[in-house]
Amino acid sequence: MKRIACLFVVCLFIGIPNISSAAEVPVSDATAECLGCHSTLHPGIVEGWRNSRHARMTPRAALAVKGLARRVSSKEIPKDLSDKVVGCAECHTQRPEAHPDTFQHNGYEVHVVVSPQDCATCHSVEAEQFSKNIMSHAVNNLAGNPLYQRLQKSILGTVKLSGKNMQPMVIQPADDATKADACYYCHGTKISIKGYETRNTELAGELKFPIFDGWPNQGVGRINPDNTRGSCAACHTRHSFSIKMARKPNTCKECHIGPDVPAFKVYSASKHGNIFSSLGASWNFDAVPWTIGKDFTAPTCAVCHVSLLINTDGDVVAKRTHQMNGRIPWRIFGLIYAHPHPKEPDTTTIRNKNGLTLPTALDGSFASKYLITKKEMMKRRHTMQSVCLGCHGTSWVNGHWRRFENSIRETNAKTLHATEIMTRIWQLDLAHFKSNAKGPEGNPFDEAIERKWSKTWLIYGNHIRFATAMGCGGDYGVFAQGRYDLSGTIFQIHDWLELRKKVYPEKVQP
Amino acid sequence: MKRIACLFVVCLFIGIPNISSAAEVPVSDATAECLGCHSTLHPGIVEGWRNSRHARMTPRAALAVKGLARRVSSKEIPKDLSDKVVGCAECHTQRPEAHPDTFQHNGYEVHVVVSPQDCATCHSVEAEQFSKNIMSHAVNNLAGNPLYQRLQKSILGTVKLSGKNMQPMVIQPADDATKADACYYCHGTKISIKGYETRNTELAGELKFPIFDGWPNQGVGRINPDNTRGSCAACHTRHSFSIKMARKPNTCKECHIGPDVPAFKVYSASKHGNIFSSLGASWNFDAVPWTIGKDFTAPTCAVCHVSLLINTDGDVVAKRTHQMNGRIPWRIFGLIYAHPHPKEPDTTTIRNKNGLTLPTALDGSFASKYLITKKEMMKRRHTMQSVCLGCHGTSWVNGHWRRFENSIRETNAKTLHATEIMTRIWQLDLAHFKSNAKGPEGNPFDEAIERKWSKTWLIYGNHIRFATAMGCGGDYGVFAQGRYDLSGTIFQIHDWLELRKKVYPEKVQP
Amino acid sequence: MKRIACLFVVCLFIGIPNISSAAEVPVSDATAECLGCHSTLHPGIVEGWRNSRHARMTPRAALAVKGLARRVSSKEIPKDLSDKVVGCAECHTQRPEAHPDTFQHNGYEVHVVVSPQDCATCHSVEAEQFSKNIMSHAVNNLAGNPLYQRLQKSILGTVKLSGKNMQPMVIQPADDATKADACYYCHGTKISIKGYETRNTELAGELKFPIFDGWPNQGVGRINPDNTRGSCAACHTRHSFSIKMARKPNTCKECHIGPDVPAFKVYSASKHGNIFSSLGASWNFDAVPWTIGKDFTAPTCAVCHVSLLINTDGDVVAKRTHQMNGRIPWRIFGLIYAHPHPKEPDTTTIRNKNGLTLPTALDGSFASKYLITKKEMMKRRHTMQSVCLGCHGTSWVNGHWRRFENSIRETNAKTLHATEIMTRIWQLDLAHFKSNAKGPEGNPFDEAIERKWSKTWLIYGNHIRFATAMGCGGDYGVFAQGRYDLSGTIFQIHDWLELRKKVYPEKVQP
Repeated sequence: MKRIACLFVVCLFIGIPNISSAAEVPVSDATAECLGCHSTLHPGIVEGWRNSRHARMTPRAALAVKGLARRVSSKEIPKDLSDKVVGCAECHTQRPEAHPDTFQHNGYEVHVVVSPQDCATCHSVEAEQFSKNIMSHAVNNLAGNPLYQRLQKSILGTVKLSGKNMQPMVIQPADDATKADACYYCHGTKISIKGYETRNTELAGELKFPIFDGWPNQGVGRINPDNTRGSCAACHTRHSFSIKMARKPNTCKECHIGPDVPAFKVYSASKHGNIFSSLGASWNFDAVPWTIGKDFTAPTCAVCHVSLLINTDGDVVAKRTHQMNGRIPWRIFGLIYAHPHPKEPDTTTIRNKNGLTLPTALDGSFASKYLITKKEMMKRRHTMQSVCLGCHGTSWVNGHWRRFENSIRETNAKTLHATEIMTRIWQLDLAHFKSNAKGPEGNPFDEAIERKWSKTWLIYGNHIRFATAMGCGGDYGVFAQGRYDLSGTIFQIHDWLELRKKVYPEKVQP
Repeated sequence: MKRIACLFVVCLFIGIPNISSAAEVPVSDATAECLGCHSTLHPGIVEGWRNSRHARMTPRAALAVKGLARRVSSKEIPKDLSDKVVGCAECHTQRPEAHPDTFQHNGYEVHVVVSPQDCATCHSVEAEQFSKNIMSHAVNNLAGNPLYQRLQKSILGTVKLSGKNMQPMVIQPADDATKADACYYCHGTKISIKGYETRNTELAGELKFPIFDGWPNQGVGRINPDNTRGSCAACHTRHSFSIKMARKPNTCKECHIGPDVPAFKVYSASKHGNIFSSLGASWNFDAVPWTIGKDFTAPTCAVCHVSLLINTDGDVVAKRTHQMNGRIPWRIFGLIYAHPHPKEPDTTTIRNKNGLTLPTALDGSFASKYLITKKEMMKRRHTMQSVCLGCHGTSWVNGHWRRFENSIRETNAKTLHATEIMTRIWQLDLAHFKSNAKGPEGNPFDEAIERKWSKTWLIYGNHIRFATAMGCGGDYGVFAQGRYDLSGTIFQIHDWLELRKKVYPEKVQP
Repeated sequence: MKRIACLFVVCLFIGIPNISSAAEVPVSDATAECLGCHSTLHPGIVEGWRNSRHARMTPRAALAVKGLARRVSSKEIPKDLSDKVVGCAECHTQRPEAHPDTFQHNGYEVHVVVSPQDCATCHSVEAEQFSKNIMSHAVNNLAGNPLYQRLQKSILGTVKLSGKNMQPMVIQPADDATKADACYYCHGTKISIKGYETRNTELAGELKFPIFDGWPNQGVGRINPDNTRGSCAACHTRHSFSIKMARKPNTCKECHIGPDVPAFKVYSASKHGNIFSSLGASWNFDAVPWTIGKDFTAPTCAVCHVSLLINTDGDVVAKRTHQMNGRIPWRIFGLIYAHPHPKEPDTTTIRNKNGLTLPTALDGSFASKYLITKKEMMKRRHTMQSVCLGCHGTSWVNGHWRRFENSIRETNAKTLHATEIMTRIWQLDLAHFKSNAKGPEGNPFDEAIERKWSKTWLIYGNHIRFATAMGCGGDYGVFAQGRYDLSGTIFQIHDWLELRKKVYPEKVQP
């Protein structure tokens, strides 16, 4: 323990970089003690934090900021946290009783997994908004949807054919580690305490640490030991929690490069993405509020979907929101058709007219009861268009939007035709799936021809719609997994069916 | 109107950023009035313009620049435009009689769609060169080519199979909005006035605005209301018109990421692309002329294809050209074979020996009458190699070029073999297309096996050639849609044919 | 020759940029003479060099640097090289007798191809380490492996089907230029002197130059005229040889973008890649040693695999190594299964239990005799984890590693099941390959179904493992050539087999 004390003192004297004088930065005793060891052990995250706003500003000072420039949304912040910068201890020892993973560590009650409820101490509005964001429900929206579970099993499971004739085909479900490494890497894992272990540490001898299931993970819908949902660090990367970084499209890329949600790659090839890539180095990504034209001259993901924007006169163009669908009328991610956005972030309650847990029926009709109204769609469209108008005239914006909604109709129509063929293939018993009143029978995703069908809407339909939405029709709308592949895949399905009709005449009714 | 006047005054006093004194920047009264409202309405583009060269320099000052550093190519500029910076009104009210989309707007005759002929007032040489560039003919070269129209229809159209047996297959042609959102997003749309509408505006009450067909669009071959071709803003992004941006490869990426023209992705994985990505942040992308070694140490797209380059002694290494094929002997974009560059930018007049509107025949021979001569190819090769020699010795450049031309021969030979199989498949009536003296019968792109064939040259052959051309043989030449996929696809075509021979014995002559 | 002398004088007076006074930069007479012409001829590389460390520092000064900051590893440097900066002549006239490509050039004995043995004069430890790195054996490990040669032939060769029935299928081997442009672009070519030619040069009249086979090339395993292996310029790009550039992931991207080794694209979508892309512009990529947290806050490829790292206390976290497998226990590049790293960099001596030149057998067992022991794996894992711990706690690192090794087991199991089906297909004579005591018969890579099988491990298995390894499970682990495609391809193989069983009943034993 002597070495800790020694390091602790050194740390206090060295002070924090980027600040004129150490005296100005009131670090709590607890945090200083953390830094004593951890600045040696994990210099990467400690230095990241040292350069962060959290390390330079007390909550009291943050609360004192007036108007749109204020970055904390809570109206009050507990007194004991107000006058020290937000360091290790401020987050990792907060609300110890609420965290089942709290453990004794060098005299402190520490928890490893910081949750949105911890961040809410200062950022309550954002935490509240995010809890209503569909992303915060990403775990159960996948794990609790029986149809999506069939897709998941067919993708993650281990396919085995055996015997001389390679029959039968069995799909063994994936283990937890595989799941955590695949779908749930972005959706989030459920983190729970599995037990404790004692480790012999270099700096402090034997110490006891918790062992987790589902750790590490920073998925947007992560279920934390304190039963909250989400991880702010998914976008606000620990431990700098840099707004600059969260506003750059690379952050969104972590989960949205595609090909299912090809947002980043489409953006990066769009005019907007080009302006960001070519000129963005001189933009101000730190400013709050964020001024169109002055701080940036083209949107990143955050501009359209999240950030508080003003014009050069100081008028608010769009309010900050962490419930990102506030600006999204359509959900262009086809399930299996693009559809009005779901009303609720929990989508497991949605039933289409055939009882499937899907927002659309296979015939293209919407499960409207569960989806937002036209009026709400108009409202959201208006909010999004306010952002567009920051750089484009009305006739440009209207023209763009007409084309965008046309692409939704177009790709939905194409998905319908592909689905009609697939349905006929199921009827002919050339592939195996039934959807009836009792629910689905079989898995519509575990045969070669079914996968071709799923690509028409899950991969190609999405590329086309994202390309339209972001004004990037050229490559991603055509040859780069767009219409060239969509039409080509339908030709393949047709070709597959024609051959089966010839080879299996007994299956085709005369 | 009071509010407009008020804003106008504010604007004059605030002045233009990046300039020492507002007095130095002579903004025309008309432009000042535009800014009065539009700086509030569209701060993104107004600020982009404010930071641009156009907002800081009068045409007279631009004309006074001596030698290679001059950026305007017109010898004379009308007096009434000479002494004010190039603002909103200078472009959007120019030549009102020539623009059918001219409308009355707050006392001015304004047109929305600025055309290359407007830009030509100061940049006449570039406008003239670009009009001879194949890119300026991008609309009709696609829309006016009956064979390409078959490909377009098969890609953009809606494929429908119907009836119990999913017969017949019908392809409904795409609507205009789909076309504008796909192929013509890059090629360009035809913009025309559809009518007028009155909108109630926030700042000026009721105003009348034109409604366009084909708007918005910034494709390189756009057909403007004034019947000119092209949009300078495709590369010189409005409203900063930054040369820095046009010289960065991200600009070219907007239309050339692939997979049909995989220029950007191949470049980005090449040594040149690596140097740009790793070290380019310190380059000078604004300098005119552009000095090899001093301003940049590796080529971007613009270096090889467009820009005026000098060496550190000040000697011209390559002249500026906006007729980009001046440095391109081979057209490595296979149609269906790589071939000497077409003589004329209008390629619809080309006929191969079978009467098809293609620069090559299916047997690999060139439609030489329509393509540049060997002598012209040598001249262009020499021009391009002058650029290479800026960083490479002669034996390096010769070795590179030998390999490049070998890859053209190699991929053309592979395309020929794939086409021989495809031709046999057509002869066996296993797929349906005939090319004879009367022109083509059927569509060679609307069946599954035909699409596999088209990928061999349209996707894989192009990847291989672009990879060779840019010294990026590794991944894009092999596993990333290169030779691995080219050979694999031929194996698939073979496999397809063998099975059909067994299943349809009646189609195979004994 | 007068012009040369003249330029030479000019050069001396102009001096070297970025240095306060020309007098401080002792350029050798020989190098000055080179610069006399070549700064005019090849300003790109000359200016690159002028801004490099080589142009600013003498070997003596470099040797005088104390401790971890020293960048030269040789203990002694020949006196005649000690007191001049490292210019053209220092490298290109070194050890003339060892270079068969040495030729007389303006009174100097110059060689074109600088080899690692030249660089070893100052950087002996790195040259020695790299010679033990598997990358330095990249040419023969491919060219000398009979099984890989079958894959290479099937990819690079020209496939021809002929006759009325498009039979037989013949694959003509690729020519040397195609090979150099494809696999050997990254692996490296064998460079040899083919002869000499006389060229009339602009600045010095008639001069004689060597003509090479295999030139240009900068592959990591290049076989140089002096019989050494490798090219330092593969990563340390000529002629700036910038450590900054070598440390950026774009350098690795040149050969590792995928899809066979998808390291770069996976990295770029990972949290680490996001931090680099979003915040890396402010990092110090030049510092030696490289301080975690201070110089950078997230790893690039070099951080984990190559560089000398210290923490903010100055303690060494990881030693520099150019034998990159020192930190790599598993070789996650499946051949055909992921396996413990080979013991020796020459992998052509490896035989699996069936006599194939593969580190694993088709049944999934390892050729353990040729692979590192568990103890060595533990050691390497420990070294790599030291780097992880710079930013992550032990439970994070352990959790990550468990998942990583689980993914290796998972993908190996999936590869095994795919291979069992493929083996059955071979047994049924539906495709053609046999592996027996006498070695392989036929080519397991030259039929459509075999290529589908090869994709399961070469493309999809690798994506999944790289995604896990770099904490990027989301897209590349699932839809972007991950588990979605792996499972989908097995469904396709199953579908293919079912149809053949029906169409070729005679091939299926009853």
